[in-house]
Amino acid sequence: MNIKEIIEQIQPLDEAAMQTARARQDTLTKPRGSLGRLEELSIQLAGMKADPFPSVERKAVIVMAADHGVALEGVSAYPAEVTPQMVLNFLHGGAAINALARQAGARVTVVDIGVATEFEPMPGLLRRKVMCGTRNLAQGPAMTREEAELAIQVGDDVLNDEAARGLDIVATGDMGIGNTTPSSAIVAALTGLPVAQVVGRGTGIDDKGLEHKIKVIERALAVNRPDATDAMDVLHKVGGLEIAGLAGVMIAAASRRIPVVVDGFISTAAAMIAIGLAPCVRDYLISAHQSVEIGHQAMLKHLNLTPLLDLNLRLGEGTGAALAFHLIEASTRILREMATFDEAGVSDKE
Amino acid sequence: MNIKEIIEQIQPLDEAAMQTARARQDTLTKPRGSLGRLEELSIQLAGMKADPFPSVERKAVIVMAADHGVALEGVSAYPAEVTPQMVLNFLHGGAAINALARQAGARVTVVDIGVATEFEPMPGLLRRKVMCGTRNLAQGPAMTREEAELAIQVGDDVLNDEAARGLDIVATGDMGIGNTTPSSAIVAALTGLPVAQVVGRGTGIDDKGLEHKIKVIERALAVNRPDATDAMDVLHKVGGLEIAGLAGVMIAAASRRIPVVVDGFISTAAAMIAIGLAPCVRDYLISAHQSVEIGHQAMLKHLNLTPLLDLNLRLGEGTGAALAFHLIEASTRILREMATFDEAGVSDKE
Repeated sequence: MNIKEIIEQIQPLDEAAMQTARARQDTLTKPRGSLGRLEELSIQLAGMKADPFPSVERKAVIVMAADHGVALEGVSAYPAEVTPQMVLNFLHGGAAINALARQAGARVTVVDIGVATEFEPMPGLLRRKVMCGTRNLAQGPAMTREEAELAIQVGDDVLNDEAARGLDIVATGDMGIGNTTPSSAIVAALTGLPVAQVVGRGTGIDDKGLEHKIKVIERALAVNRPDATDAMDVLHKVGGLEIAGLAGVMIAAASRRIPVVVDGFISTAAAMIAIGLAPCVRDYLISAHQSVEIGHQAMLKHLNLTPLLDLNLRLGEGTGAALAFHLIEASTRILREMATFDEAGVSDKE
Repeated sequence: MNIKEIIEQIQPLDEAAMQTARARQDTLTKPRGSLGRLEELSIQLAGMKADPFPSVERKAVIVMAADHGVALEGVSAYPAEVTPQMVLNFLHGGAAINALARQAGARVTVVDIGVATEFEPMPGLLRRKVMCGTRNLAQGPAMTREEAELAIQVGDDVLNDEAARGLDIVATGDMGIGNTTPSSAIVAALTGLPVAQVVGRGTGIDDKGLEHKIKVIERALAVNRPDATDAMDVLHKVGGLEIAGLAGVMIAAASRRIPVVVDGFISTAAAMIAIGLAPCVRDYLISAHQSVEIGHQAMLKHLNLTPLLDLNLRLGEGTGAALAFHLIEASTRILREMATFDEAGVSDKE
């Protein structure tokens, strides 16, 4: 199936399942509404999964890795060689996402969708390279439209393979030195906000670096003139391969009624693209956390998503999403495991 | 040991362990500081436990249940009979705290420290009743000073028994119809804020009920004139038995270097009392979440504690604390499980 056909398969939330879940919440032994966002989440999940008692037992974090031509402009505090080095770290289980996914009982699927280095075949690595990193978006389009579409297709394929292994919920993660630059460019292009308002320090550049990064992104937007009404135009001109791939994961997950836990700044840039291509994807997204990156707030406001956590994270890899898994699972356990007022013989409100 | 002797045993955070933990965090394969509060938490836990690689594997939620004479004034949306009914629900595993503690791998210890009903001996129930509920604090002291001290001693005993079973971290939980009223009275008494600014809807009273509740608490403060400089005076005059017991748990835990995860409004009222009695207890407390109850913000500000979660919870029982366990455990796993730049062969910042 091509992207358009996948998008056409996305269904709205299941109202009947949500009603049943809501009614059940109101009979459980607690003051109605007293579990706040957990109650809302459980109802939203029921709608996504068309199941009044949703389960999120089988979890995966899909980490897409890619390089960025714009890294040549010196927009990151780390050298580009860190991208493939961190891919190996993921495969060896030593990165933050490995520790946090293990705790959450989630598997980690690592995808080379566009790292500039060639990898040998390795257990756990999906080699789905579209190209050896994007071109420098400060000088012209990061990708062709066709390359961006291919990357979205990779995301779709990966999600489908994960679904075949058994998947109740998926989280998005990213690795790519320089990737806060395309993410900032995407939010500036799609919201029309001034670049300076949506650019942060990424992995930790100083004041001078920040000033430079802003200029690079302003140049990228001036050179490429992305069309805010055409998400694919924005994606291929100022995006990244992992961003495209994650957008593909989101679209494919929505088409299969699989909830998507969206990590921080890079993943939310992908969500902006996915929703730009298919607004109905939004119903299947759960925002995991509020990132330190200032542009992230603008993204969430634009998408009308409220993050679950606010822990001053700015790492990526899906780390915030892995933490959010616990809260999401908690919401389903409340719905499935708690006794009702009747069952427990507890008096209801007077 | 009496309370004074226990307090004298509380040690400051272990600086050496914190330094080692901080240095370790700075070598792990992530931009320094990029895991925000998780990094801070891991260092704080190292200091509490005097262990640079702290573990929080063995977890307990101590739920203290008690009744409140002031419930006669009609300050709650639920009848007082719900207190013993919910105790049975806890013992049968059907309450929210049971579901959330199971998920977090924590045991739930239920303590009758002052429920108005007599319970038969039951597996899992600690029968440590100090009295059959407090007296009506709107008419005079809720307890005598001696009764409040006895209740603190119960908290100490319970924590010591839990420690003997093996305990790396403890969470506080409460059950007691009417107990947002003494909690509001405590925060008003200790901060000097107007009652109307620290009183919320508890389990769900309406506007008229809220107005009435404010008047009841104003009367309680006028009748009892609690001394803000004497936490024991505040506790026995306008407090509750579960609040006293939880303060005892906190003091005992601090004396044993066991971190305490403080749930919402009622537990934080207990924290105000514990810190009033022994300021050094504060170092051992982790605020789990921001409650919907408006007085909770004033408490946290007064104690200079920043909550981990903000999920619009207002249930109590330790539910927010059980959710926070996941984040706290995550912080320790990061410290213990992640590879360093050297180990993983990843290039550090340029």
